[in-house]
Amino acid sequence: MSLLVIGTLAYDSIETAYDRRSEVLGGSATYFAAAASSFGPLDLVGVVGRDFKPEHREFLVRRGVDVAGLEVAHGETFRWSGRYEADWNTRHTLATHLNVLESFDPKIPERGRKSEFLFLANAEPRVQHKALDQVEHPKFVMADTMNLWIDIAKDSLLHLLRRVDAVVLNEEEARMLTGERSLLRAAGAVLGLGPRYVVLKKGEHGAFLISKDVHFSIPAYPVENVVDPTGAGDCFAGGFMGYLASQKKHDPATLRKAMVFGTVTASFCVEGFSVEGLSSRSRTDVDARYDELLSIVTV
Amino acid sequence: MSLLVIGTLAYDSIETAYDRRSEVLGGSATYFAAAASSFGPLDLVGVVGRDFKPEHREFLVRRGVDVAGLEVAHGETFRWSGRYEADWNTRHTLATHLNVLESFDPKIPERGRKSEFLFLANAEPRVQHKALDQVEHPKFVMADTMNLWIDIAKDSLLHLLRRVDAVVLNEEEARMLTGERSLLRAAGAVLGLGPRYVVLKKGEHGAFLISKDVHFSIPAYPVENVVDPTGAGDCFAGGFMGYLASQKKHDPATLRKAMVFGTVTASFCVEGFSVEGLSSRSRTDVDARYDELLSIVTV
Repeated sequence: MSLLVIGTLAYDSIETAYDRRSEVLGGSATYFAAAASSFGPLDLVGVVGRDFKPEHREFLVRRGVDVAGLEVAHGETFRWSGRYEADWNTRHTLATHLNVLESFDPKIPERGRKSEFLFLANAEPRVQHKALDQVEHPKFVMADTMNLWIDIAKDSLLHLLRRVDAVVLNEEEARMLTGERSLLRAAGAVLGLGPRYVVLKKGEHGAFLISKDVHFSIPAYPVENVVDPTGAGDCFAGGFMGYLASQKKHDPATLRKAMVFGTVTASFCVEGFSVEGLSSRSRTDVDARYDELLSIVTV
Repeated sequence: MSLLVIGTLAYDSIETAYDRRSEVLGGSATYFAAAASSFGPLDLVGVVGRDFKPEHREFLVRRGVDVAGLEVAHGETFRWSGRYEADWNTRHTLATHLNVLESFDPKIPERGRKSEFLFLANAEPRVQHKALDQVEHPKFVMADTMNLWIDIAKDSLLHLLRRVDAVVLNEEEARMLTGERSLLRAAGAVLGLGPRYVVLKKGEHGAFLISKDVHFSIPAYPVENVVDPTGAGDCFAGGFMGYLASQKKHDPATLRKAMVFGTVTASFCVEGFSVEGLSSRSRTDVDARYDELLSIVTV
């Protein structure tokens, strides 16, 4: 399939109410790739430091990720540490060290430039624009973002929204971006900012997709034992884009199925720290949970 | 159909961030009946004061509600007043005057005692037990409750849960009742308390039903313009029980459809103050929104 992700690779240190991990593989591009690779090979563009471990590069390669666009820069890999409250809904960022990310200037290799499906994972909008500039004729581009960029780079982000087909946001981001308190109105207002499709992620409450002509809503898969929610949104996007790219289309019927696959890959993600929840899962596991999730919402 | 509700009738005064109403018809049995009557006639047991307006009794009768069990007592009808924050998720109770409710001793008329479907709307568990004692051979009994009874009448409530087929709870109640923070675990723990089915209402995030052999989840209908969420939970229960009673069965397939119908009647409820959102709706409107909601969750 023809899918490219540009985003971050990180070493995360995470505390939950039940457990903790230090310096585990994370980052938006990592999580996306771990999920999307269930559907076929993809290309990854990002930057790491000299400290990035060979086993983590090998993990990506083993999942079918082409890492020709993974730059190794002087300095250290991006670090993030955070703590979750027992209800999982509150996350405290304890530290962020951008390190090599600070001066990241994405260079997309030849093959990636011809990608048909492109995911601009959460990054500074300037970097997202630069990546988008280099992809020649993408058929479907989805972007993610975060509250920080809405705060400090809103103009650049608004410009980006006019250049993409879809944007994926969580509740807080949608409200911040539009000033609308009602989630449905906020999502509608985001459509007015340019993208044809808006995917709203509601964590444990599922996700919905709206456009002028599609409205699709899916509850979260009922995970019995949440271990670590880090990366769930990126894994959602990975399942969503991975499925679209595997089908080579993005018509409404395919988008609906992609929402279900995204929900499934996000559910595997939260069942382990780092990429553990996904790395042991095969496409067969994904398909089985897809069927199970559909059975939960079918009358 | 053979359906009985026992619960409250009230005059509510409500403030939202956008509008307000004083002394409008409310109460758990009222809302339930307004919704359930879309599916057929039902019996209502409750108490009002001498101040209960003839037009409100007539409203119920016009909807096909048998009010033989509506006692008119000395004193005033139950009053409740509350205020909602702009995000609808926070509700402040400003005043509660139990009035005639305080000494309510439910007496179920002959026909109601033979009901096959019974809804014990939110009331003191003592009153719910007394009502249940009088119904001879109910086929399916569902109970509602609230945080107050979990606080001050937990033993009686726990006993009630062993006597009913289903319980309908919101997130806070499920967590309070079980001490479990995860909603899914809380729902599972409630099953362990006796009822065969647990319906979890999540407001704008929809609802789910679990039992040993059924798991069904449905997002809320995307209401564009919420006017007043008061009574949404009772209208959910009304649509749910009304549909079951109209079908005279409660097998898993019927329960799933009932969840969708409950979601629909709750969505009409929040589109107006008091019972206005429902009173103008016909069964045709309910069926049309049922189809629309299913189209939103179908791949």
